[in-house]
Amino acid sequence: MESAVKRIGVLTSGGDAPGMNAAIRAVVRTAMKNSIECVGIRRGWAGLIAGDICPMNSGSVSRIINRGGTILYTARSDEFRTPEGQKKAANTCKLLGLDGIVAIGGDGTFRGAQDLSRFGVSVVGVPGTIDNDIVCTDYTIGFDTAANTAVECIDRLRDTMQSHERCSVVEVMGRHAGYLALYVGVAVGATAVLVPEHQYDFEKHVAEKIRAARLGGKTNFMIVVAEGAASAMDVGKEIKEHLGLDPRVTILGHIQRGGSPTAKDRVLATRMGYEAVRVLAEGMTNRVICVRDDQIVNVDIDEGLAMKKTLNAEEFEVMTVMTGV
Amino acid sequence: MESAVKRIGVLTSGGDAPGMNAAIRAVVRTAMKNSIECVGIRRGWAGLIAGDICPMNSGSVSRIINRGGTILYTARSDEFRTPEGQKKAANTCKLLGLDGIVAIGGDGTFRGAQDLSRFGVSVVGVPGTIDNDIVCTDYTIGFDTAANTAVECIDRLRDTMQSHERCSVVEVMGRHAGYLALYVGVAVGATAVLVPEHQYDFEKHVAEKIRAARLGGKTNFMIVVAEGAASAMDVGKEIKEHLGLDPRVTILGHIQRGGSPTAKDRVLATRMGYEAVRVLAEGMTNRVICVRDDQIVNVDIDEGLAMKKTLNAEEFEVMTVMTGV
Amino acid sequence: MESAVKRIGVLTSGGDAPGMNAAIRAVVRTAMKNSIECVGIRRGWAGLIAGDICPMNSGSVSRIINRGGTILYTARSDEFRTPEGQKKAANTCKLLGLDGIVAIGGDGTFRGAQDLSRFGVSVVGVPGTIDNDIVCTDYTIGFDTAANTAVECIDRLRDTMQSHERCSVVEVMGRHAGYLALYVGVAVGATAVLVPEHQYDFEKHVAEKIRAARLGGKTNFMIVVAEGAASAMDVGKEIKEHLGLDPRVTILGHIQRGGSPTAKDRVLATRMGYEAVRVLAEGMTNRVICVRDDQIVNVDIDEGLAMKKTLNAEEFEVMTVMTGV
Amino acid sequence: MESAVKRIGVLTSGGDAPGMNAAIRAVVRTAMKNSIECVGIRRGWAGLIAGDICPMNSGSVSRIINRGGTILYTARSDEFRTPEGQKKAANTCKLLGLDGIVAIGGDGTFRGAQDLSRFGVSVVGVPGTIDNDIVCTDYTIGFDTAANTAVECIDRLRDTMQSHERCSVVEVMGRHAGYLALYVGVAVGATAVLVPEHQYDFEKHVAEKIRAARLGGKTNFMIVVAEGAASAMDVGKEIKEHLGLDPRVTILGHIQRGGSPTAKDRVLATRMGYEAVRVLAEGMTNRVICVRDDQIVNVDIDEGLAMKKTLNAEEFEVMTVMTGV
Repeated sequence: MESAVKRIGVLTSGGDAPGMNAAIRAVVRTAMKNSIECVGIRRGWAGLIAGDICPMNSGSVSRIINRGGTILYTARSDEFRTPEGQKKAANTCKLLGLDGIVAIGGDGTFRGAQDLSRFGVSVVGVPGTIDNDIVCTDYTIGFDTAANTAVECIDRLRDTMQSHERCSVVEVMGRHAGYLALYVGVAVGATAVLVPEHQYDFEKHVAEKIRAARLGGKTNFMIVVAEGAASAMDVGKEIKEHLGLDPRVTILGHIQRGGSPTAKDRVLATRMGYEAVRVLAEGMTNRVICVRDDQIVNVDIDEGLAMKKTLNAEEFEVMTVMTGV
Repeated sequence: MESAVKRIGVLTSGGDAPGMNAAIRAVVRTAMKNSIECVGIRRGWAGLIAGDICPMNSGSVSRIINRGGTILYTARSDEFRTPEGQKKAANTCKLLGLDGIVAIGGDGTFRGAQDLSRFGVSVVGVPGTIDNDIVCTDYTIGFDTAANTAVECIDRLRDTMQSHERCSVVEVMGRHAGYLALYVGVAVGATAVLVPEHQYDFEKHVAEKIRAARLGGKTNFMIVVAEGAASAMDVGKEIKEHLGLDPRVTILGHIQRGGSPTAKDRVLATRMGYEAVRVLAEGMTNRVICVRDDQIVNVDIDEGLAMKKTLNAEEFEVMTVMTGV
Repeated sequence: MESAVKRIGVLTSGGDAPGMNAAIRAVVRTAMKNSIECVGIRRGWAGLIAGDICPMNSGSVSRIINRGGTILYTARSDEFRTPEGQKKAANTCKLLGLDGIVAIGGDGTFRGAQDLSRFGVSVVGVPGTIDNDIVCTDYTIGFDTAANTAVECIDRLRDTMQSHERCSVVEVMGRHAGYLALYVGVAVGATAVLVPEHQYDFEKHVAEKIRAARLGGKTNFMIVVAEGAASAMDVGKEIKEHLGLDPRVTILGHIQRGGSPTAKDRVLATRMGYEAVRVLAEGMTNRVICVRDDQIVNVDIDEGLAMKKTLNAEEFEVMTVMTGV
Repeated sequence: MESAVKRIGVLTSGGDAPGMNAAIRAVVRTAMKNSIECVGIRRGWAGLIAGDICPMNSGSVSRIINRGGTILYTARSDEFRTPEGQKKAANTCKLLGLDGIVAIGGDGTFRGAQDLSRFGVSVVGVPGTIDNDIVCTDYTIGFDTAANTAVECIDRLRDTMQSHERCSVVEVMGRHAGYLALYVGVAVGATAVLVPEHQYDFEKHVAEKIRAARLGGKTNFMIVVAEGAASAMDVGKEIKEHLGLDPRVTILGHIQRGGSPTAKDRVLATRMGYEAVRVLAEGMTNRVICVRDDQIVNVDIDEGLAMKKTLNAEEFEVMTVMTGV
């Protein structure tokens, strides 16, 4: 990895995701092994504007591969959405002599990277978001941990629902995408799963599923709702009103964002962080690191952000068959 | 354990708690080893009224020691609160030739046991409730699992609160008792803990704690609220209004009731289930199995229910010192 | 899924893997939804020879999606390796009127499926083995759970190694393939990783890695060894002899085989089980269900077994860079 | 807590235990709240001799309540067993102006505290050892986490033993005391449990238990062995030779020492750490902090170390009844 690149920055931006620390660690260690200096930028793009930096070395990233959250903090920045803000951020790069930035986050983060690229700063994005909604990559860091956390919580709920022969409605994350809800719903053997990609129809998607399960002998029911598909509270009310059950509603919320990352999130974060430095060292810019077919590749950010990710049709079909039993 | 007792019943009643299955298993296996027949009664006191029974043998309780919930189901019964209901339940015992009943549950369950005793049925109670609010025993089955579940969830929340430098308000179970909130609050290093035993004072119990932590350098705050102390939503609103922070509110709810029981819950449930059969076999009735100073003992139910459990004063003092830093 | 297929069998064979139960559940439920009768065959190919069967319905597979192991048991069979044994197994299929068999297991299981196919029985294989060593599929059921279990155990070891400033040698599964060791080693941030695919060289693969880490400031070291690469005990002895450290050796063993399956193992097992029935219903035989690029596909067994899976070269390169720091 | 005490030290010694960090945190924070300066002594008594110290403040103990191991490191010291070593350690206290030491560890640590007391240094011990073998206290920090770790590992083993209908022999910690093995054995529903307090008799303690379980319909068996009771390897060999089974042997080893502490370990460590500072502040010395009947008390070290802890007779009796089924 011979390179003209001498000093790079690394930041996390947008919502945090388990595995971000493993990615930071890989960026720092790969840089060091290649004699590239690495600077930590705290609180995302806002921190780049403000020059909120910290030196990074091998010790700074010790013992963080298994820690949730991000040691570099994260924040959203309105100022960075303006050309003035972007200019300030680019100036910080100039002042510090940064030859490139690794930006870990979701699509908002990558749009920021596009903007900054226009000011002549080399930027490479690493997909870190529990939503797994970035179309150019099979996988985004944090999704696996979030899914397992939701599954563990719902397994617990299932215990008490079985004992009391009750109905449970659980809201999982996913404002615009039902990928997490679909995945979690299949994993817990849900009675019904509601995703934002399909227009919510209580009779068809909930009532008939519960009836089929009850007729099949079940006395407890688990409804998994993506937050963007319907309000779990409202679904609970409809179940009470139309089916006469007394459901318990649970909103998992931010619990899904934290926790020690799973093996998958640590491994992919490490591989992606490594690749990000390699790509910068080769002089590329405006790239996103992706995983496709278990290979790490890099694609143009503009390309990667051009499309909207859709639900896996086959997985959705399987869910449809498996629910309501 | 020579005994005139030939056949007993076992039931779970009230809210379920992790470890109830381990207690059922111990009751069944201890009975069998002593040549006492054991009948499972489903859905608590309501099931006893209805004669909702199932035969139990060694195989019925295989592989359940590590399962949350209760294989005998649980329910609340209004009918059993009436003398007519109690008489029906006593008749079921007569019909089935039950020489005694092991009733696993909380104080409501024990009050039912008292009632049934008056109709000449021998009953022994085993304390199974995540609230740990029964005064005669140091410990009730399920509390340890519930506490660990809450702690794991809050550890996850803490990750993301640190990354985003935010405030979190978490509501844990405890309508009348703050024991769980206090315990969990100490275990997670909460910034503040609110319990129903102390009149809620936002300025003193929340605002000053957050300020002290902020002045000490902290930028994230964790407020643990027992559901009986205040509404977590309202606490969140006050924090926003009076302190200008933007807190995230999480209500753990029924997640706390489920999950594979901890080692402690399994061991104590086993020891208590064993003792319950021993006590019945000795011809005693109207007893509650308790643990005191790590010894299993049995006390009169009336005595055990006479007092209200108060917070551990020393633990509360420790919490007061440890919070707000 | 209109089909001439009326009755199928399902079995698990070879070493068990977490997620096998989720696959069995999917096979049974998909069959039922398509009015195909499903028979459980216990103890793998041996059970097919012996006619060791049990009827399966929706209730038989309730509450098993989250359970480790296999409710159908598993066993190895020498008899099935002989043409006589295979003929007996084929006769059982004839006797029972089975139009097809879903066989869940590893490459040994698939070789058995090939053999049985020759006797005119339709067989479809579902890859279930923690080794992830089947070349035609990106993933085999159980690997993710095994990897996470190993990572959790090593995280615990790391705590005490840090406190005592010690060296740890951990042996993970993988007699012929180092995929698990490589993955786990990257996930825990190991000091060194030994895989059977590379000739073991103590000086280069262990001593230099430990020295580099010590020179970089580390005082505890974690060596991950695939069982096929070297004996963990021997590696420990060499470390003691040549480096003067006093390492602790741990052999994870069968702990890695059990436990509640992760979200990924449950979801892929469900999708694969569904596809296996679909493929049989379409009249195909001698197929293996695979996942490629997150899509479920089916390939010819002979093709799938023809090649040997090699280590992911890029992941190995990343490991090489990340270790010894 | 008005006090003449101005500066104290805190150290961890002997084998590490989960919860030690929570105790350190409580010591430091309680000291600070009472305007007592706190110095960290690294690597136990050896560090006190060497003057291996670090300043401690509120920030030093941030985010450690949930971390296994000890941030102060731990070590064994031969030199400290000599009067010369003890004198050197006492001199360090003099040099640094330490008015007292909180020593967190097991009985070896407390013997060191006794020795140091004789040189005029005030010492208070906090029991931190996974063995729970200190007679003056109902509980020692770390036991609960170790027990839950062992139970989780054995639950996993159980999955695969059931699938393969096999016998498993698991060695848990406990060189001189069988308390952990007994507790874990009851919690996992073991077929047999071997403890060092009872002379090992293969025929009675293992063979008859396995036979009884087999006759009762079981096809998998779990034998839990305390390391001091017998060699798990030898037990495995005897099972193979005398019963013709092919058992799998697992030695849990140091996995049991690590991991994020359970709620109980965090809460008791916090309460004990608080009390240790209170006791020092009151001018007491040569005390051990104990928990009895869920109250924190302090007793004279000499008294506390005088007796040997015996197994809980009632728990042993329960185990005897519950095994072999």
